[in-house]
Amino acid sequence: MKIGLIQLNPVIGDFASNGRVIKEWAAKAVAQGAELLVFPELALCGYPPQDYLEHPEFIRQQNLLLQELIDAIQDVPVLLGAFTENPSRQGKRLFNAGILFHRGEVLFTSHKKLLPTYDVFDEQRYFEPGRTSQFLQLGGKNIGITICEDLFNDPDIYPEQLYKTDPIGLLHDEDELDFMINIAASPYTLGKDKTRIRDFGSICRKYQTPLLYCNQVGAQDSLLFDGGSFVLDQTGALCGQAASFQEGLLLVDTDRLVKMDVAPTSDLQQVYDALVMGTRDYVRKCGFSKAIVGLSGGIDSALTCAIGCDALGAENILGVTLPSPYSSQGSVADSLALAQNLGITCHTLPIADIFAAFKTGLAPFFGDREDDVTEQNLQARSRGVLLMALANKFGSLLLTTGNKSELAVGYCTLYGDMSGALAVISDVPKMLVYELARYINRAEETIPLNTIDKPPSAELAPAQTDQDDLPPYHILDPILAAYLEEHLPISAIVEQGFAEAVVEDIVRRIKINEYKRKQGAMGLKVTSKAFGFGRRYPNAQGFRE
Amino acid sequence: MKIGLIQLNPVIGDFASNGRVIKEWAAKAVAQGAELLVFPELALCGYPPQDYLEHPEFIRQQNLLLQELIDAIQDVPVLLGAFTENPSRQGKRLFNAGILFHRGEVLFTSHKKLLPTYDVFDEQRYFEPGRTSQFLQLGGKNIGITICEDLFNDPDIYPEQLYKTDPIGLLHDEDELDFMINIAASPYTLGKDKTRIRDFGSICRKYQTPLLYCNQVGAQDSLLFDGGSFVLDQTGALCGQAASFQEGLLLVDTDRLVKMDVAPTSDLQQVYDALVMGTRDYVRKCGFSKAIVGLSGGIDSALTCAIGCDALGAENILGVTLPSPYSSQGSVADSLALAQNLGITCHTLPIADIFAAFKTGLAPFFGDREDDVTEQNLQARSRGVLLMALANKFGSLLLTTGNKSELAVGYCTLYGDMSGALAVISDVPKMLVYELARYINRAEETIPLNTIDKPPSAELAPAQTDQDDLPPYHILDPILAAYLEEHLPISAIVEQGFAEAVVEDIVRRIKINEYKRKQGAMGLKVTSKAFGFGRRYPNAQGFRE
Repeated sequence: MKIGLIQLNPVIGDFASNGRVIKEWAAKAVAQGAELLVFPELALCGYPPQDYLEHPEFIRQQNLLLQELIDAIQDVPVLLGAFTENPSRQGKRLFNAGILFHRGEVLFTSHKKLLPTYDVFDEQRYFEPGRTSQFLQLGGKNIGITICEDLFNDPDIYPEQLYKTDPIGLLHDEDELDFMINIAASPYTLGKDKTRIRDFGSICRKYQTPLLYCNQVGAQDSLLFDGGSFVLDQTGALCGQAASFQEGLLLVDTDRLVKMDVAPTSDLQQVYDALVMGTRDYVRKCGFSKAIVGLSGGIDSALTCAIGCDALGAENILGVTLPSPYSSQGSVADSLALAQNLGITCHTLPIADIFAAFKTGLAPFFGDREDDVTEQNLQARSRGVLLMALANKFGSLLLTTGNKSELAVGYCTLYGDMSGALAVISDVPKMLVYELARYINRAEETIPLNTIDKPPSAELAPAQTDQDDLPPYHILDPILAAYLEEHLPISAIVEQGFAEAVVEDIVRRIKINEYKRKQGAMGLKVTSKAFGFGRRYPNAQGFRE
Repeated sequence: MKIGLIQLNPVIGDFASNGRVIKEWAAKAVAQGAELLVFPELALCGYPPQDYLEHPEFIRQQNLLLQELIDAIQDVPVLLGAFTENPSRQGKRLFNAGILFHRGEVLFTSHKKLLPTYDVFDEQRYFEPGRTSQFLQLGGKNIGITICEDLFNDPDIYPEQLYKTDPIGLLHDEDELDFMINIAASPYTLGKDKTRIRDFGSICRKYQTPLLYCNQVGAQDSLLFDGGSFVLDQTGALCGQAASFQEGLLLVDTDRLVKMDVAPTSDLQQVYDALVMGTRDYVRKCGFSKAIVGLSGGIDSALTCAIGCDALGAENILGVTLPSPYSSQGSVADSLALAQNLGITCHTLPIADIFAAFKTGLAPFFGDREDDVTEQNLQARSRGVLLMALANKFGSLLLTTGNKSELAVGYCTLYGDMSGALAVISDVPKMLVYELARYINRAEETIPLNTIDKPPSAELAPAQTDQDDLPPYHILDPILAAYLEEHLPISAIVEQGFAEAVVEDIVRRIKINEYKRKQGAMGLKVTSKAFGFGRRYPNAQGFRE
């Protein structure tokens, strides 16, 4: 059977546009000989629709589009993800469903059984878990249809199971399967493209059954869906894969699966492509085309700016350098060199007079108190106001440049350098920032070497460097990963060879800066635990470790 | 049986302090003759602990405190809320439990069956639903022990049930009960104090069984737990109630329930007290004691300032008036009058020079473009920077003054008037702001009448008023409530008598301002649907209604 896996990049709730794109892809796939079309999880409304699922009008419009597609695509059967209404008065009102239709009729509906409710996922907020069979006969084939998380509870693969049932096991109890199809909306995180193939390959081998995996692509706010839809044969070998980070069609002949020999994409390239797609889709889906980046001469703003150029085109990026009385000569020179390498316009807008006006206004109240972090924040906020004014006046979005390491410990100014629409690298730890800068420079020097090599500094006080206040990043970053991603207690982190006082101080800073991050710009998620709505902690708390 | 219901105000994760307070209240209740002590849901760690529940160290410390209390309180049995670990490798790792201990031993553990996962609640993120019995025999009494949401699924009371089981029905199937106890962490919303007694009273009548209800008190970030613990007899009549919005003990003799005749507290008083408690607890639990309020001469900042004074004491509130070139004379005069009435210090800090410095800096880039919202934002942001500088220098928190109506439609400036630690009235619609101002003035004129009577204005452009840009608030507010709280489609709101173009414009504004609210200060929740983490919508979306 020839099956077209179509990895779609929908816009949440844009039923008109999503429907049009689905019809276009359907026509292409049919023209190429597909006998069954497969679209991802919740393809009609996009994933995740969040609380729009509580709006009757949203439900009505999805159902209208579904009926429109059932009527419009008649040539071949279509399997797609959509929510359906729970007819019972008990339980959540919706199911997360896979629907198969053909010749104007729905032939089959299966409901997602495992509803992820952790990290960025809130599915039990909206959906009732499915209890119906996921087994389908079509064109003489026995097919198991599951939805994303349904693949993730095999007791032989996962030492702890989040759920009490294993849908794959249940399916194989029902009958001999010719192959499985999984429709998904699975966001990218570092290395996940490889673990998917490894883990799902184990399932294929265990049941001696091929798997066709159709994943959403495109960014939705923080979430970066990588697509990369694939087919594995009954030994778990990769026999075909769509490109990552772009819409596309993968045509699979289930009767002729041939193992392909490809080198996997490097993690650096994957994470870079993810950030570029995330920036492009956020700006575009919010209805903008241009962006502004404040350039400090440092590596964070240089990386952000390079990503912005790849996402939107250099002609749509405006760099602004805003030297203060404490800025080094190098900071402006390095920014201008970067702008030249990238081919962007760069303005210079000194903040000394504005900083002075603030100090003059506050002088009657501050008296002869010594300068402290207040004056550093005043500079960062003067810049934030100027950048936002340029964004407002010219209809651009401001890209924020902070990295994950500084956001974790609060080495950033709320309403200052944290201002902006999108925090492009807020989930990229500083050591990975360096790696990505070198990745960008792999062919030629785009990010000035001086920017990469000089000691990092906020330049908000005379001769300041980050390491006046923070441990070196090669020490900070692994401590942050251990605490934030693995939830290790301080004692276990110290056992890894870090000084207890350092670990304690970092953990303390992470906690007391929760309020800053809650008001920070939305960031693109590339690690297993990003700041943002997938990480939920109180501001007011008294937990001492 | 004499039962002490102790409504506790814990701090999330502050096990040392929470344990100390529990022991103090236990001693008081025993001294007053209590034969059973009852503490609220998750009393040891506070509710909601959020992702701290994923930290092994957090779990360890709670379990240590539980053991310490089991050893320390030996005189009478104690029932309290705590999480317990799920011994199975399948399902979520924790249960939300009620634990009864006496003489050094745990006698009974029951698990919460219904796990709210909607609005501000995320319990299925952390907990496995309970399947054990909630039936307990103690001191010759048959007692049903349920936890908060377990009370909320009676098919005779709720037309739609969110869950498939009704724990109260299951309990009464087991045996004849003498009374029920519910331990809760149920946050206040407008009118909820009355619906609780009404709905739970129906359950008492249905089963002819009294109910003792012990609720958490105190604010935890956005959530305002009102306490108001009570006892209802088997007819559903109120026979005793603890005060709202303060820690306290309600001693109940279950053999002598006598109906009490009390006038219910007015909704205005309840919501005012809720906001005062919310402000006090947020500032205190974050380790601060002082706050700053920017005074515009308008009613929002006046109400916020009055709440701040009741919460922290006038001596801990600093008012700041920041006139711009477009401010009316009245705005400073009204602010100073308010400050005098409240007995607070008030600084005046004109922003003209700072505004001019920004305009001068930007002039080379803005050229001869006309003034637009950019220049309005520059003024609001100049104020935001100054207020934050005062807060930074003097170790205060800045209270934000925006109301729900303007936040809904984006009539506010990100990084400007939206700056601050806590948005005191961000869930108070403008019409309720007026009612609360009159409530404050019920005995004497605290908020100047001129502030209440003048047309609302942001004063960011010559002769500007809110109604240049927005419908009158008595029209805006009901449209917002219909859309935000009831999820009504535009057509249904129009059927209520509002102009279609007005409704469409408001709904459009709500959507395009999602990004502003996501970066706004945390607000206190007093309605059934507040902006913040209980309302989850994408920034990038294309839903057209």
